[in-house]
Amino acid sequence: MKNISAKIDDHFDSHSLATASLENLYRIFTVPEAPNSTLGAIDKEISANLMGFLTDRIVTREKSLKAIEADFSDSDFPEVPQFVSEYTDFVMEKLVAHSVHTSAPGFIGHMATPLPYFMLPLSRIMVALNQNLVKIETSKAFTPLERQVLGMLHGIVYERDSAFYEDNLHNSRRALGSFCSGGTTANITALWVARNQMFRPTDGFAGLAKEGIARALAHSGYKDLAIVVSERGHYSLGKAADVLGIGRSNVVSVPTDAKSKIDVKELRNTCARLKRDNIGILAIVGIAGATETGMVDPLDDMANIAEEFGAHFHVDAAWGGPTLLSNTHKHKLKGVERADSVTIDAHKQLYVPMGAGMVVFKNSMALGAVEHHAEYILRAGSKDLGQYSIEGSRPGMAMLVHAAFHIIGRKGYEIIIDQNVDKAKSFAGMIDEHPDFELITDPELNILNYRYVPAAVQAKLRNASSKEQKAINEVLDRLTKRMQKQQRASGKTFVSRTRFSQVRYGGEPVSVFRVVMANPMTTIETLRAILKEQAAIGGRDGNLKILAEIDS
Amino acid sequence: MKNISAKIDDHFDSHSLATASLENLYRIFTVPEAPNSTLGAIDKEISANLMGFLTDRIVTREKSLKAIEADFSDSDFPEVPQFVSEYTDFVMEKLVAHSVHTSAPGFIGHMATPLPYFMLPLSRIMVALNQNLVKIETSKAFTPLERQVLGMLHGIVYERDSAFYEDNLHNSRRALGSFCSGGTTANITALWVARNQMFRPTDGFAGLAKEGIARALAHSGYKDLAIVVSERGHYSLGKAADVLGIGRSNVVSVPTDAKSKIDVKELRNTCARLKRDNIGILAIVGIAGATETGMVDPLDDMANIAEEFGAHFHVDAAWGGPTLLSNTHKHKLKGVERADSVTIDAHKQLYVPMGAGMVVFKNSMALGAVEHHAEYILRAGSKDLGQYSIEGSRPGMAMLVHAAFHIIGRKGYEIIIDQNVDKAKSFAGMIDEHPDFELITDPELNILNYRYVPAAVQAKLRNASSKEQKAINEVLDRLTKRMQKQQRASGKTFVSRTRFSQVRYGGEPVSVFRVVMANPMTTIETLRAILKEQAAIGGRDGNLKILAEIDS
Repeated sequence: MKNISAKIDDHFDSHSLATASLENLYRIFTVPEAPNSTLGAIDKEISANLMGFLTDRIVTREKSLKAIEADFSDSDFPEVPQFVSEYTDFVMEKLVAHSVHTSAPGFIGHMATPLPYFMLPLSRIMVALNQNLVKIETSKAFTPLERQVLGMLHGIVYERDSAFYEDNLHNSRRALGSFCSGGTTANITALWVARNQMFRPTDGFAGLAKEGIARALAHSGYKDLAIVVSERGHYSLGKAADVLGIGRSNVVSVPTDAKSKIDVKELRNTCARLKRDNIGILAIVGIAGATETGMVDPLDDMANIAEEFGAHFHVDAAWGGPTLLSNTHKHKLKGVERADSVTIDAHKQLYVPMGAGMVVFKNSMALGAVEHHAEYILRAGSKDLGQYSIEGSRPGMAMLVHAAFHIIGRKGYEIIIDQNVDKAKSFAGMIDEHPDFELITDPELNILNYRYVPAAVQAKLRNASSKEQKAINEVLDRLTKRMQKQQRASGKTFVSRTRFSQVRYGGEPVSVFRVVMANPMTTIETLRAILKEQAAIGGRDGNLKILAEIDS
Repeated sequence: MKNISAKIDDHFDSHSLATASLENLYRIFTVPEAPNSTLGAIDKEISANLMGFLTDRIVTREKSLKAIEADFSDSDFPEVPQFVSEYTDFVMEKLVAHSVHTSAPGFIGHMATPLPYFMLPLSRIMVALNQNLVKIETSKAFTPLERQVLGMLHGIVYERDSAFYEDNLHNSRRALGSFCSGGTTANITALWVARNQMFRPTDGFAGLAKEGIARALAHSGYKDLAIVVSERGHYSLGKAADVLGIGRSNVVSVPTDAKSKIDVKELRNTCARLKRDNIGILAIVGIAGATETGMVDPLDDMANIAEEFGAHFHVDAAWGGPTLLSNTHKHKLKGVERADSVTIDAHKQLYVPMGAGMVVFKNSMALGAVEHHAEYILRAGSKDLGQYSIEGSRPGMAMLVHAAFHIIGRKGYEIIIDQNVDKAKSFAGMIDEHPDFELITDPELNILNYRYVPAAVQAKLRNASSKEQKAINEVLDRLTKRMQKQQRASGKTFVSRTRFSQVRYGGEPVSVFRVVMANPMTTIETLRAILKEQAAIGGRDGNLKILAEIDS
């Protein structure tokens, strides 16, 4: 039911649309939402109690996707303006209620983090200003701010001296990094730069940026190009290879060891083989916090190999990068300072709202390889940030990163990160001790993998031949998938699942639960409850029936 | 000065950081900003009076970029957490005060629009939910909502029947479009699809997506690839050619006619030449609302040529697309319904905050050419939107587009669009009547170009030889640049400038003012004042001195 005041305060009278006048329309730009209107009240509710809003307004029981789709199935563009209050009622009932409470303490399945309260009013300032970072004429102070944010991140990764930053931070001919909408575009940007740097203009060749890949290859004499990464590389690397015209099958996958880290010997062999085959190594990509396992590749060893083969060394630290803010754990990323480029997402472990990825470059001239200009903006020598970004128009998200850096501070991040790693270790301990679960990845940072395997089945697996193991694992895979869906449907807690090769099972892929520890509100009690819930789900009739297939 | 209540309500005591505890940190996630805190008060101020906030808080006098940079020059990551109130004071003084008031009625220089009030509380809901649209597990109802928004936009462009939308809207094997962070990524996506569709898998060839461009070309027998667009094409097309590995010099530029529209005869000649030279035409790109002039290419004629040469026909309607919502002006885009793909930005003429571009495809199978999967998300057959997007993790901006569609409605947009076109025509009339201004582009939509040329100089230009014209125009170019900077610096009003070839001056490029009519608050009086201000600036001593060079 719409209340009367809301009706008065709303902007359109849909019943008198024949008279929809310019004057009525002006009101949406000039008359604020009244605090007691439907939308105004919800605004206040969120501001006063974010967690309460999310907990109360999102229903926990899963509504079928089909039923949700029915609410969004009209393909006709709305002809007649709708009351704001009416629309708000719709949004609350149909959209908000059936969103995902990604910041619930028991939602530990994806890289979703809760937001600090200060992000809400600061986001409003950002939206209200509606700056466009592509050019200084529509962003002004936001431009130096973004360059500072990139400089601070650069400093965390590369720790150059203050003279370096004085020279580079606001130098229009230099760029310490590029601000992106996310980690995927950051990875694409890094490999775009690597590709163009590999084929710079020379005599009789205007460079790959101008002439394209086919001519670049012909000119260089290479037979083809390759991007080398462990089999745990993020799927965005395959997408980047596609987008950049290199081809997905030219992402060369290197096996991992028992700890899910790239096998350095295999990496060197792979590079040697590529060299022998006259295939140019565009980039070697190290992973710092693998999406599936959270593991960090041996970056120092990889940097050595990249140097040996003269390849661009990129580190995908979209997830794990903020670990550098913890003096306790930063050593785990040793070698990242030797990378030519590093991706770090702010909307992950930096607790910034969705839409903030960054890539920093060791060499402040590197982004010159993708520089571009236009007559009405991005003029050469200008400070327009759009010269060095894959995106054009884009919002002032850097402001929220700047805010988080200052209000949380390195020490604040350190506390959060250390706690997350500790909790992952504790959870791994619980899993290991529980007779009916198998720990698959002992966490290095704050992601881990495990599965439900009743004690008796574990014993069977241990004594089985590799052929028998495979048969048992096939049954367990089905069980893992089913349990994950059942847990999600019950709506109380959420873990995700993935599937990757296991050295302990002869390199065969196995489906596992995946847990990401990033919510400071997640407690040991939450984790204990999740394991208990999973054990209970595992004991359901349907699941026992699946397990029974192992004996038959 | 920080007030006491703010001090109490803020989250960190930076003086006792040695004891910065987990408990203190939790508070940033659990304790809301108090309404009477520094940040809380600003939040209320924006909600109650957005225009007042922007007008009062942004200073009009330009501070030098150098001075602004000094406020953002510390490259050290902040070690110690800062009070929220302290940080807020900084943001207000150093960032907000020196942002750009892009929604001021006199800011008519770029494609920046004011935001309707309802966008503020709705943005807060979006940020609070912090959904990630890459996969359904972190977005749920947002996924069908985004598909609906893309379907509605598709309907506006292609007007297919309801059976078509019933079949496609929520079909996981189909996609009517891709939601992007902006028009650049939308254009890249369109050309990425066109490229991969051109080189699909065949016998002995796994397709360009897998094998890369070099092998695709070798397999096809083409010597090279080309993207064909008028010389007014947006700079993102060159960037797309670079990113996609095609090469910037393979964007083939076609001359425009006196109206700044693509010369259709030249387009056909160009295509015929490319064909003769065995160069594959990857795409012909039509412009619907050129960034510099607002002109719309003859899309129907271009569609014919695209058909004739079997090329993908893309229309960059990032700016002009919403014109389709006006029954008065939609005929100007006739032929857009024959395009294979169309880019439309919501953060431009759809009045949505920055960060919302879209590309729709005529064929709902087209995006299959860039489809990709991963083990833990985007599984084949899932409804995860990330399968078809160049970005990975991304925010629920589609919600704000959905809101604008419903609350403004087609009729509401029609009123705004018609008014903007009318105002552009009126402004063109004023310029034409004014003895000291030269109208360069008679607006077709709502963008126009002109320059300051005192009557006496205009007379001289008319009677000059082409060599003399060139000399005069060189002086005028310097004047235009200088005047534009002076106007910007005075901070009252803003027009941008650009430079492009003029048929009337023998095809030589000339610098001009550029005006974009998109703010419903801009009135005829605003426009009159802008012209008056410019005439006054033109009469300043320094500028008269430049003009005097014409006589010497």
